[in-house]
Amino acid sequence: MSDTSDAGQQRFDRGMGVLESILGESGRGIIDRLADISPELARQIVAWAFGEVYPRPALALRDRQLVTLAVLTTLGGTETELEVHLQGALTVGLRPEEIVEALLHAAIYCGMPRAINATLVAKKVFGERGLLPVAAGDGTAGGS
Amino acid sequence: MSDTSDAGQQRFDRGMGVLESILGESGRGIIDRLADISPELARQIVAWAFGEVYPRPALALRDRQLVTLAVLTTLGGTETELEVHLQGALTVGLRPEEIVEALLHAAIYCGMPRAINATLVAKKVFGERGLLPVAAGDGTAGGS
Amino acid sequence: MSDTSDAGQQRFDRGMGVLESILGESGRGIIDRLADISPELARQIVAWAFGEVYPRPALALRDRQLVTLAVLTTLGGTETELEVHLQGALTVGLRPEEIVEALLHAAIYCGMPRAINATLVAKKVFGERGLLPVAAGDGTAGGS
Amino acid sequence: MSDTSDAGQQRFDRGMGVLESILGESGRGIIDRLADISPELARQIVAWAFGEVYPRPALALRDRQLVTLAVLTTLGGTETELEVHLQGALTVGLRPEEIVEALLHAAIYCGMPRAINATLVAKKVFGERGLLPVAAGDGTAGGS
Amino acid sequence: MSDTSDAGQQRFDRGMGVLESILGESGRGIIDRLADISPELARQIVAWAFGEVYPRPALALRDRQLVTLAVLTTLGGTETELEVHLQGALTVGLRPEEIVEALLHAAIYCGMPRAINATLVAKKVFGERGLLPVAAGDGTAGGS
Amino acid sequence: MSDTSDAGQQRFDRGMGVLESILGESGRGIIDRLADISPELARQIVAWAFGEVYPRPALALRDRQLVTLAVLTTLGGTETELEVHLQGALTVGLRPEEIVEALLHAAIYCGMPRAINATLVAKKVFGERGLLPVAAGDGTAGGS
Repeated sequence: MSDTSDAGQQRFDRGMGVLESILGESGRGIIDRLADISPELARQIVAWAFGEVYPRPALALRDRQLVTLAVLTTLGGTETELEVHLQGALTVGLRPEEIVEALLHAAIYCGMPRAINATLVAKKVFGERGLLPVAAGDGTAGGS
Repeated sequence: MSDTSDAGQQRFDRGMGVLESILGESGRGIIDRLADISPELARQIVAWAFGEVYPRPALALRDRQLVTLAVLTTLGGTETELEVHLQGALTVGLRPEEIVEALLHAAIYCGMPRAINATLVAKKVFGERGLLPVAAGDGTAGGS
Repeated sequence: MSDTSDAGQQRFDRGMGVLESILGESGRGIIDRLADISPELARQIVAWAFGEVYPRPALALRDRQLVTLAVLTTLGGTETELEVHLQGALTVGLRPEEIVEALLHAAIYCGMPRAINATLVAKKVFGERGLLPVAAGDGTAGGS
Repeated sequence: MSDTSDAGQQRFDRGMGVLESILGESGRGIIDRLADISPELARQIVAWAFGEVYPRPALALRDRQLVTLAVLTTLGGTETELEVHLQGALTVGLRPEEIVEALLHAAIYCGMPRAINATLVAKKVFGERGLLPVAAGDGTAGGS
Repeated sequence: MSDTSDAGQQRFDRGMGVLESILGESGRGIIDRLADISPELARQIVAWAFGEVYPRPALALRDRQLVTLAVLTTLGGTETELEVHLQGALTVGLRPEEIVEALLHAAIYCGMPRAINATLVAKKVFGERGLLPVAAGDGTAGGS
Repeated sequence: MSDTSDAGQQRFDRGMGVLESILGESGRGIIDRLADISPELARQIVAWAFGEVYPRPALALRDRQLVTLAVLTTLGGTETELEVHLQGALTVGLRPEEIVEALLHAAIYCGMPRAINATLVAKKVFGERGLLPVAAGDGTAGGS
C-alpha cells in the first residue's frame, strides 16, 4: 500500500537524505532510472532501505557498506550496484586497501571469480578517483 | 540420445509453435544463435521445454511466465533471457503493472539488486513498445 | 530508525493482519521465533513486507504467492520459508496441481535439484493436509 | 503435454534403465518419493534427463558425473542429490581420490563452504562403503 | 602440490594458531571432520585461508568476520559454517547487536529468507552463550 | 601474510608456469589487470590456485577444466572467466563436442539459462578459433 501519508513522506525524505549522503549522484541516478518503470520500487529503496534500515544506530555506516559490498560480491551480476556502493564505501570512510582486502577475504568463502569481478569494478571506480595503484596491504609496495 | 524419430520431430514442431506464439522473433533468435554451437541444446529447449512442459494444461501460460520471470530475476545474470521472457509475458497477457509489481514483490525474497536489474531490463523492453511510464500500481499516478 | 510512531504501529498492525490471513499460524511462528534475537527483522517483515508490499492492489495475492514460491525454489536452502509459503499459497487459492506444475516449470530455468527439493517440501505440506496424491495435471491419473 | 505415446514410454523405459545403472536404488528412491506429489516431475527426470541427455555418446558417463557433482556442489543446499550422485560417481568409475580432489578444485571457484559441505556428504557416502580414509592425493599418506 | 616443505609447515602452524584463536574448538572441529575424507582440503583451509589471508594486516579481524558472515548469509545452505563463524565473530569483538543488525542490513540486498535463516542460527549460538534477548538496536528495549 | 619468502616465490613461479600453460595469454591478462588494484588477489590466484591446487596429481588437468567450466556455468555472471577457461579447456584436451555436451548436461542441474549463457560464450571462443559448427554429438550432422 503506497504510503502517501505525512509519515510516508517523512520516511522518504529522510531516506533520500541518507542515500545522497552515502551514495551521492550515482545512487540518485539509479532511483531516477527507476522512476518511469517502477516508481514504487524506487520509493521503497529510498523510504525503506535508506529511510528505515540504514539510519539505525546499531551498526556504523562504514560497517553497513562493508556488508553491502560482501553481499553484492557474493551475489554476482551486480556490477551496477557495486559501482555505486564502492563509491559509497569510500565516502563513509572505508580505505581502498580495506576494500580490496575485503574482496580478497570474501574469495575464501564465495570463490575467486566473484572476488575478481568485484575487484575489477573497484579498479574502475578507484581509477576514476585517482586512487590507483592500491598498496599490497602487507607493508610492501604494490605489484605482484 | 538425439530423438530423430517421428515422435521426436512432432515434439520439436509442437515446441517451436509454442515458443513462437509466446516469445515471438526474440525467442526464435536465441534458438538460431545456438544452432552452430550446440544444436542439441537448441533442440532440447524447443522439444522439451516448449514441446513438453509449456503445453501442459495444469498451469496457465500467464502463470508460467510469471514463474519464469521470478526465477530469472532470482538467478541474476540472465538479462538476455529476461528480455525475451518479458516480451513473452506481455504476449500471454501479463499487464506491465503486474510485471513490475511482481519484481517489487520478488525483492522481498531475493533482495533489491536482483529486482532492480530485472526492472531495468523491463524498462528497456517496455520502452521499445511505448509502454512507459508504468503507473504506480496503487491508484496514484506514476513517479516517486 | 525503528519507526515507533503511530504510523509505524499502523503499518505493523496492517502487516500482521495480512500475514496472518495468508500464512496463518506457521507465518506467525517465524515472527515469534525472531522476537528475542532480532525484533527489528521481525518488525520489518511484518510492517514492510506484509504491511506495505503485499497489500498493494497491483498484483493479486495468488500471483504474489506464485512469485514467492518461484523465488524460494530458485534460492534453495529455504525449506522453512517454503513450508510456510506453500501453506499460504493454498490459502490464497492456488490449487495443488498448479503449485506442483509451477515447480516443474521452474525446473526448466533453475534446474531439477531445486525443483525436486521444493516439491518434496510440498509433499510434506500437502500430506499433512490430506491433499495427496496430486493428479498428474494432464488429464491422466497420478503416478508415473 | 504428458507424452503417453509409445515413443514416450520407450524414452521412459530407456531412462529408467540408465538411471538405475548409474544411481542404483538411491536414485530410484527419489523418483518413488516424487510419485504421489509430482508424477510428471518424476517422469521428466527419468524420460528426459536420463532417457535423452545422459545416453548421448558425446560425453562419457564418468565425465557427466564429474559435471553433476560440480554443479550440485556449487548450487549448495543439494545434500540429498549429492548423496545419490556421489554413489553414481563411484559406480561409473570415478575414484574416491578424484572426487575429493574435484571438490577441492571446485573450492577455488565456488568457495570453501560449498566444497566443505559437499566433502562432508562424500564422507558419509564413502564411510558407508568402507572407503575411508581417502588418500591425500599427492603421494603422501592421508591426514593433515 | 601438497606443500610438505618447512615453509608449508610454518604456514599450516600459523594458520592453525589463527583459526583456533578466532574460531576456537568449533573451528577445529570442522578441520578434524575433514581429516579422513579430504586431508588436503583441511590443510588448505588452515594453511591458505587462515595462514595466509586472515593474518594480513590490511583488514581487521573484526571486519573479516563481518565480511564472512555477510558472504555465508548470502550463499545460503551454510548453517554449519555460520555457526562456527558467529562464534568467531563474537570472539573478535563484534557485539550481538551489531551482528543481528548486519543480518538485517544484508536482507536489503540478499532478501529476507537468507537473513532469517542466518538470524535463526545466531539465535542458537547466542542462546547457548546466554546472550538472548538481543536489544532492538535503536535505543528501545527488545521485543516487537 | 604476503609470503615473500623464497618458498613463496617458488610457489608463485610454479603457479605462473601452470597458469600460462593452461590458460595462455588470456589467463595472464586477468592477472595483469589485477596488478594495480589488488596485487595480493593476483598473487593468490597464481601462487595458491595454480601453484598449489592445479598441479596436484590426484585429478587430471582435463578433468579440472571440466569441473571449472561446470562451476563457472552454475555461478553465472562469470563470462570473463568462462572465456579464459574455455580456451584452457581446449588447450588441455577437451574436445569442442565434449564441452558443449557438458554444458547441455549441466542444464539438467542448473537450468537452461545458465547453460545457454555459457554456450554462447563458447560460441565466441570457438568461433575465434575456427571451430564452428560443432557437431551434434550423436553421430548426426550439426544443425537442429
